[in-house]
Amino acid sequence: MIRSWTTVASAPQADYGVFRVRVERRRSPRTGAEHGFVVLDCADWVNVVAVTPARELVMIEQFRHGTETVELEIPGGVVDPKDASPVAAGLRELREETGYEGEGARVLGRIAPNPAIMGNRCSTVLVERCVLRHPLQFDHSEDLVTRLVPVAEVPGLIATGRIQHALVVVALCLFDLAQRVSPGPSASGRS
Amino acid sequence: MIRSWTTVASAPQADYGVFRVRVERRRSPRTGAEHGFVVLDCADWVNVVAVTPARELVMIEQFRHGTETVELEIPGGVVDPKDASPVAAGLRELREETGYEGEGARVLGRIAPNPAIMGNRCSTVLVERCVLRHPLQFDHSEDLVTRLVPVAEVPGLIATGRIQHALVVVALCLFDLAQRVSPGPSASGRS
Repeated sequence: MIRSWTTVASAPQADYGVFRVRVERRRSPRTGAEHGFVVLDCADWVNVVAVTPARELVMIEQFRHGTETVELEIPGGVVDPKDASPVAAGLRELREETGYEGEGARVLGRIAPNPAIMGNRCSTVLVERCVLRHPLQFDHSEDLVTRLVPVAEVPGLIATGRIQHALVVVALCLFDLAQRVSPGPSASGRS
Repeated sequence: MIRSWTTVASAPQADYGVFRVRVERRRSPRTGAEHGFVVLDCADWVNVVAVTPARELVMIEQFRHGTETVELEIPGGVVDPKDASPVAAGLRELREETGYEGEGARVLGRIAPNPAIMGNRCSTVLVERCVLRHPLQFDHSEDLVTRLVPVAEVPGLIATGRIQHALVVVALCLFDLAQRVSPGPSASGRS
């Protein structure tokens, strides 16, 4: 039985906007010894699996500043305080980043991006019957191109590493699991 | 066509051991405007899908300091400079964290934990025919319990959120993909 560690002290280090850094001093329940652990405080995130009536995923390509590479991803971003829910945040990000809207939005799952160093969660939202409805609204720091990718091609794109963002792979894995458990009417016989 | 941003300046901020923080000033190829981006420099990581002859996954439970929760995960850790390869690092982590050894180790895939803010990669290593061979060697800051989980139960554990570490979900997704493309001799008819 694994027990929780006790927090002895918590020391804020720096605020970088997208995250804050904190050092926690905690005591081991097994040895009684104290250790320091660095933790990042981030907002919660959302990723959107947006599917068109033709069984295509609405994906985006963008330059990513951590890896310095152009990545094939799905729409997503931060759950803002002004968003009523992760679903609302997902629909907003989908609209802002691709101009698409859809129906039947629901949460497919919620994971922890990195429990070792981050406390936040990332929800995956499924939106079906998506169609292009709005002009794009990019932030000044965003350059995005929309790509429609047949759902059937996704496993190959993951296997070959063309899709390599961990949180995008997780979202597509949750979508695949949901399809296998209860394929929707638009998916039957085709997934 | 998405183009790369040009780095105008790079300013190291702080070194927290498990990662260093850097602020990059970069110029947009679309607008020519400059923006600042916070980036974390981390070592590369490895996660290990270790399967026993009875088709069980060798999993671990441990307290995680980011989420402050006990997580059901797979063995893994940092690829050290002393490790000859990600496969060697994975075999070392598997042995140190669980005492298990196996055969036929190979890389199933390599993903980017978070391309937006981190430049590192995480390899997933598959090890088959795993058996318990060694006494455990825990770091002072680690408390781990080994759990053997039937491979067939993994999709349910992901769907219900019992497994919620994103990089673990990715590893198990890559394992599932590999099984579907070319099931190994020990898997045929049972996965």
